[in-house]
Amino acid sequence: MPINRRFTLVRRPDGMPVANDFRLVAEPTPALEEGQFLLRNHYASLDPAIRGWMDDAPSYLPPIRLGDPVRATTVGVVAESRSDAFPVGSWASGLNAIEDYSLGAAGGFTSPVDPDAVSSVTHYLSAVGAIGLTAYFALLEVGRPAAGETVLVSGAAGAVGSLVGQIAKLRGCRTVGIAGGPEKCARLIRNYGYDAAIDYRGKSPDALDAAIRAAAPGGVDIQFENVGGAILDAGLLSLNPKGRVVLCGLISQYNSDPIPLSNIWRLIVQGARMEGFILTQFIPRFGEAIPELAAWVKDGTLRVDEHVDTGIDNALPAFLRLFEGSNEGKMILKIAED
Amino acid sequence: MPINRRFTLVRRPDGMPVANDFRLVAEPTPALEEGQFLLRNHYASLDPAIRGWMDDAPSYLPPIRLGDPVRATTVGVVAESRSDAFPVGSWASGLNAIEDYSLGAAGGFTSPVDPDAVSSVTHYLSAVGAIGLTAYFALLEVGRPAAGETVLVSGAAGAVGSLVGQIAKLRGCRTVGIAGGPEKCARLIRNYGYDAAIDYRGKSPDALDAAIRAAAPGGVDIQFENVGGAILDAGLLSLNPKGRVVLCGLISQYNSDPIPLSNIWRLIVQGARMEGFILTQFIPRFGEAIPELAAWVKDGTLRVDEHVDTGIDNALPAFLRLFEGSNEGKMILKIAED
Repeated sequence: MPINRRFTLVRRPDGMPVANDFRLVAEPTPALEEGQFLLRNHYASLDPAIRGWMDDAPSYLPPIRLGDPVRATTVGVVAESRSDAFPVGSWASGLNAIEDYSLGAAGGFTSPVDPDAVSSVTHYLSAVGAIGLTAYFALLEVGRPAAGETVLVSGAAGAVGSLVGQIAKLRGCRTVGIAGGPEKCARLIRNYGYDAAIDYRGKSPDALDAAIRAAAPGGVDIQFENVGGAILDAGLLSLNPKGRVVLCGLISQYNSDPIPLSNIWRLIVQGARMEGFILTQFIPRFGEAIPELAAWVKDGTLRVDEHVDTGIDNALPAFLRLFEGSNEGKMILKIAED
Repeated sequence: MPINRRFTLVRRPDGMPVANDFRLVAEPTPALEEGQFLLRNHYASLDPAIRGWMDDAPSYLPPIRLGDPVRATTVGVVAESRSDAFPVGSWASGLNAIEDYSLGAAGGFTSPVDPDAVSSVTHYLSAVGAIGLTAYFALLEVGRPAAGETVLVSGAAGAVGSLVGQIAKLRGCRTVGIAGGPEKCARLIRNYGYDAAIDYRGKSPDALDAAIRAAAPGGVDIQFENVGGAILDAGLLSLNPKGRVVLCGLISQYNSDPIPLSNIWRLIVQGARMEGFILTQFIPRFGEAIPELAAWVKDGTLRVDEHVDTGIDNALPAFLRLFEGSNEGKMILKIAED
C-alpha cells in the first residue's frame, strides 16, 4: 500500500498563510469501495480561490476542514480502480487535494482526460481546465463583448487574465491590461496581444485613473476584474454607459481587509452592472467550451503560459507566489513525475 | 411680465447643503421663441438625485451651473405659449427647476399631463412620474422578480421604496423593508404591505445582518438598494445564488464619503449581479408603464404617500428632509396654488 503525503490545513490563516497553518502528513492510501478509484496526482492547480476555502466562511464550497488536505484541482493517473469509467493507467482530473493520491469517483468535477489531445497534461489545469473555462464563460457570457468594444482586464498577466485578453482580441475588442511591474506589462503586449498595458505599482488612485483614461480614451465597456480594491475602484470611473464589470476575483483582499470602494455610484449613473462569476453555474455548458478551447490551444491561437514549481514540500511557497505576483503564468505544483 | 422667483445654486455644497449655497432671486420671465412655452410651476419634485447634480462631477446629466436654478421635475400650467402642443391653460410636466416659471419646449422629459386622469396632479411627480417609473422598471426589468422570491428594500418608506414593496407584492414576492425608526417601520407594514420591517437605526453591522437573516430566513433574491453603505453591505451577506442587487440610489453617501463595502465578494461566490438603474435608459418604454401605474393608483392598488411642503422659501429645509428622513412620503414642494 503506497504512502500518501498530504498537505493538510491545521489552522485557519490570519491574513497571509504561514508555514504553521499547514502540516505535511504521511498516511496509508484508503481502501476502495465499489465505484471508486485512486488517482496518483501528477499536478495540482494552485489558484487564489483556495485561499477563500481556508477561511471558516460560508461560500459556494464548504471550508476545508482542519486536518484535511488543501483542496485543489489535480490531474493524474489512475493507480487502482473499482470504477469501469476510470481504468488503471488512464488519466483523470478532478477537484481533489494537494496530496500524492486522491480518492475519486464519477461525478462533480471529476472526469477522464485525454493526454494525447493536448501538448501537456498540465493544460487540463490551465487553458483546457477550470481556468480556461472561467476566462471563456466569464468574458463571453457575463461580459458579452461586441466587436469594437474596449475590455479592461486586471490581473492581466495572471492565469485567467492572460486568456481573457486573448479571447477578447479574437472577438474584435480593444484590450487594456493592468499588471504589476514592467516585466509583466511587457509580457501583456508580447505574449497576449494586449493593445495597452498599465503598471499599477506605485500609482495613486488619481494616477491609475489617468492611466486608464489614456489607454482607453473611448471609455471601458467591459471591466474584467481579478483584483478588486483600488484597481476596481479606478476602473469604475472609466466605465461606459451599460458597461459590464465581470467580477471574477478579488485577489487584493483575500489576505487582508477589503479596500473601500468609493465609485460604486458609477454603476447607477451609467446604468452599468457588476456581476459575479462562479464557474459552477456553467457546469452544464462545459461541453460547448472545451472543444473550442482545446482547438485554440492546439493551433496556437491561444498562448498558454504555465509556471510549474516542483514538489509537495514546496506547496506553500508555490501557493504564495500568487499573492506576491512572482509567478509567470498559471501556477501549477508538480507532485509526481509523469 | 410676471416676476420669476428662482432658487439658484451659488456655491457647490461641501457635504450637507447649507443656506449659503443657494440664493433666491427674482427675475423677469423670458420672452418666448417659436416652439417654446412658459410653465407656471405648481409643484416641484424634491429627490435625492438633485444632490448629485449640485456637484461638479461628470454624470448622466451635466452639473447644475452656478447661478442657475436648482434642477427639478415640476408640474404646472402653461401660462404663455408659442407651442401648439402646449396650449395656455393646459398642464405639463418636465425636468425644469425650482422656480415660479420654467421655459419649456417639446422633447426630453417634457410632456403634457392630464389633471383629470389622477386624483392629484402631484401624482405626476410621484407614482405616475419618474418615481413610479423608477420603481416599475428598476424592480421589474433589472430585478426581474419571480413569484415566491424574497425582495429586500432599503429606504423602504421612501418615495421609490414604498412603491417597490407594493409592486413586488403584486408579483407574488415576500417583501422585507429597511427603514429608520419605529414609526417608519410601522408604516411599512401598515401602508405598503411589507411582510417584515427592519429598523436599521442603532444597529451594528452584525446586528443588521442578524435582523436580515431573521426576516429573510430563505435568503434574499433581490436587494433593492436606495441607501448603500452599511445597509448594502449587510444585505449582500444574505444574497442568494443568482441574486440581483438593484442599485437605484446611495443616499447614505450623497453628502459624505462612501462607507467602505466589505462584502462585494458575495457577488462572486453567489454568481450574483449588482446593476445600476438610470431611468433615462428606459425613456422609450415609458408608454408601457404609465397606463399600468395610473390604473394601479386610480383603483387603489398602489398606496401613494406624499409629503408636501409649501413655498419656494422652504425649498432648502424641504429638500433636507430627504437626508434627515423626516418626510413621510414622496417629498414635494408646492410653489403655486392649484
